Amino acid sequence: MEQEPYPLVILGGGPAGLTAAIYAMRAGLTCLVIEKAVAGGAVFLTDKIENYPGFPGGILGPELSQRMEEQAKSLGAEFLQDEVTRVELEGNLKLVKLAGGKTVTSRALVVASGCQPNRLGIPGEDKFYGRGVSYCAACDGAFFRGAEVAVIGGGDSAVQEALLLSKLAKHVHLIHRRDQLRAIQVLQDAAQQAKNISLIWDTLAQEVEGEDQVKAVKLLHKPTGQKRSLPVEGVFIYVGGKPITGFIRHLVEMTPEGYIQAGEDCKTSVPGIFAAGDVRKKPTRQIASAVGDGCNALKAVEDYLLGL
Amino acid sequence: MEQEPYPLVILGGGPAGLTAAIYAMRAGLTCLVIEKAVAGGAVFLTDKIENYPGFPGGILGPELSQRMEEQAKSLGAEFLQDEVTRVELEGNLKLVKLAGGKTVTSRALVVASGCQPNRLGIPGEDKFYGRGVSYCAACDGAFFRGAEVAVIGGGDSAVQEALLLSKLAKHVHLIHRRDQLRAIQVLQDAAQQAKNISLIWDTLAQEVEGEDQVKAVKLLHKPTGQKRSLPVEGVFIYVGGKPITGFIRHLVEMTPEGYIQAGEDCKTSVPGIFAAGDVRKKPTRQIASAVGDGCNALKAVEDYLLGL
Repeated sequence: MEQEPYPLVILGGGPAGLTAAIYAMRAGLTCLVIEKAVAGGAVFLTDKIENYPGFPGGILGPELSQRMEEQAKSLGAEFLQDEVTRVELEGNLKLVKLAGGKTVTSRALVVASGCQPNRLGIPGEDKFYGRGVSYCAACDGAFFRGAEVAVIGGGDSAVQEALLLSKLAKHVHLIHRRDQLRAIQVLQDAAQQAKNISLIWDTLAQEVEGEDQVKAVKLLHKPTGQKRSLPVEGVFIYVGGKPITGFIRHLVEMTPEGYIQAGEDCKTSVPGIFAAGDVRKKPTRQIASAVGDGCNALKAVEDYLLGL
Repeated sequence: MEQEPYPLVILGGGPAGLTAAIYAMRAGLTCLVIEKAVAGGAVFLTDKIENYPGFPGGILGPELSQRMEEQAKSLGAEFLQDEVTRVELEGNLKLVKLAGGKTVTSRALVVASGCQPNRLGIPGEDKFYGRGVSYCAACDGAFFRGAEVAVIGGGDSAVQEALLLSKLAKHVHLIHRRDQLRAIQVLQDAAQQAKNISLIWDTLAQEVEGEDQVKAVKLLHKPTGQKRSLPVEGVFIYVGGKPITGFIRHLVEMTPEGYIQAGEDCKTSVPGIFAAGDVRKKPTRQIASAVGDGCNALKAVEDYLLGL
């Protein structure tokens, strides 16, 4: 016998998805959250979070994740641990195909599957993640006040985050594999004018070194083959990111980088499919703005289910 | 001697303003938050909050306000209690005139002064606020599961919130002073089709009655002059709202309703002035989306101060 479709299925159990679930349950909409790993998404993997409002002194990532999950669960949201392989349409219904073989049917769908920063793939990068290695200066920069830090990359994000770090850290070493930055000119100018940013050209980061915490990054100067160890306490890596959208790429409009095209109202190009959180094309990828998305997406879901 | 301008002044100490302050301090930007009353804004006046992610079981409004304020203060944000009377421009600088006589100068300005729901101005309305009287079904509707409630108003918001409440409450009485709704047709149709919504036409709410909590609303049927007491546990009032923007109305583009025109990036029509939270034209007016705004506004402030 076929199961009644859910009014709402949410793909992803990070802050955007969990917020959408909280708002759904409080609006009397039964919802199912599908998450392939643990609730909290990237937040679960974060050590200390100081910038999510409501937690003076900060909170650990796993604790915040757990609190949000518990909140959604206590309001009655259902959870399923499985991986989404593909979303298909059948009339107005959304069919969510799962790696476990099941298909879940829903009237509205919130895609909140997040985004993974690209890794350099060098030794020490994983080991020191959260202990000096970071992919987000806006999240972690404040932990490096007065320290020497390295930023790896040469695009807009890398340079902008180097500028942010330059206000906090003692010195920022911007390490780029080419002999010029890809970032827009005004950012390049600002970086070159900043007294405590040094540009290190034609150089690859080869290893993150340390004991408990990061102590240095090993560099290779490509033209000369010279190697050296640069003493730093922080290594910020900005070599792009991958939004997790493979399962829905064939359906909704995307940016060339693979983010889902949707405005602040979270509406995608397909009626009844909404994008919330890091997976959406948006100005910031932060917990604070992800919960904003979850809330806005639910407003759009309610409007959609009312036929507005 | 003139004081050095602040890099950033934030008008309003609600969730949007406090989040902007948290992000500013963590980005190494000194900021001053000006709030005329207590930090937290409308949140401070809210009883229990169940839909702000991170607090399973809910949190009291004053406690959440205090936590956000403490967080901003512990990161070094400055606070000033005063009322803003007018903002003026002097070149690129923003001059904030205060009721106390002082003028504060800033390079960037985040306007997060909030919005006040219009009150009916009837006896009992203030007394039972938070004890049955509410201006936000999305915030408080879930506390009225299985109850009889009244919604007062006839516009889009009133009808949409009546529909939201109809999924939670036992019965919704939609009380309107005219003989037809102003809401768009599809909302009217949905309200008329909902089995547990009754429309009460040509009727004024005259008093909210109760002891500790709301027990009834006293109604006057205008054509007949007939009075009666309708037993309800909740009274939801939707008769418009007033964004608090008088001090900046002459400078930035506004909607006809007085909200500041600004997109998700919070940029207003004046470079260096940003609008965040309920004061901005936006899809939802919730704590979750206000903190999103605070975070996005700070990204825009940083870009502005870099000359981007």
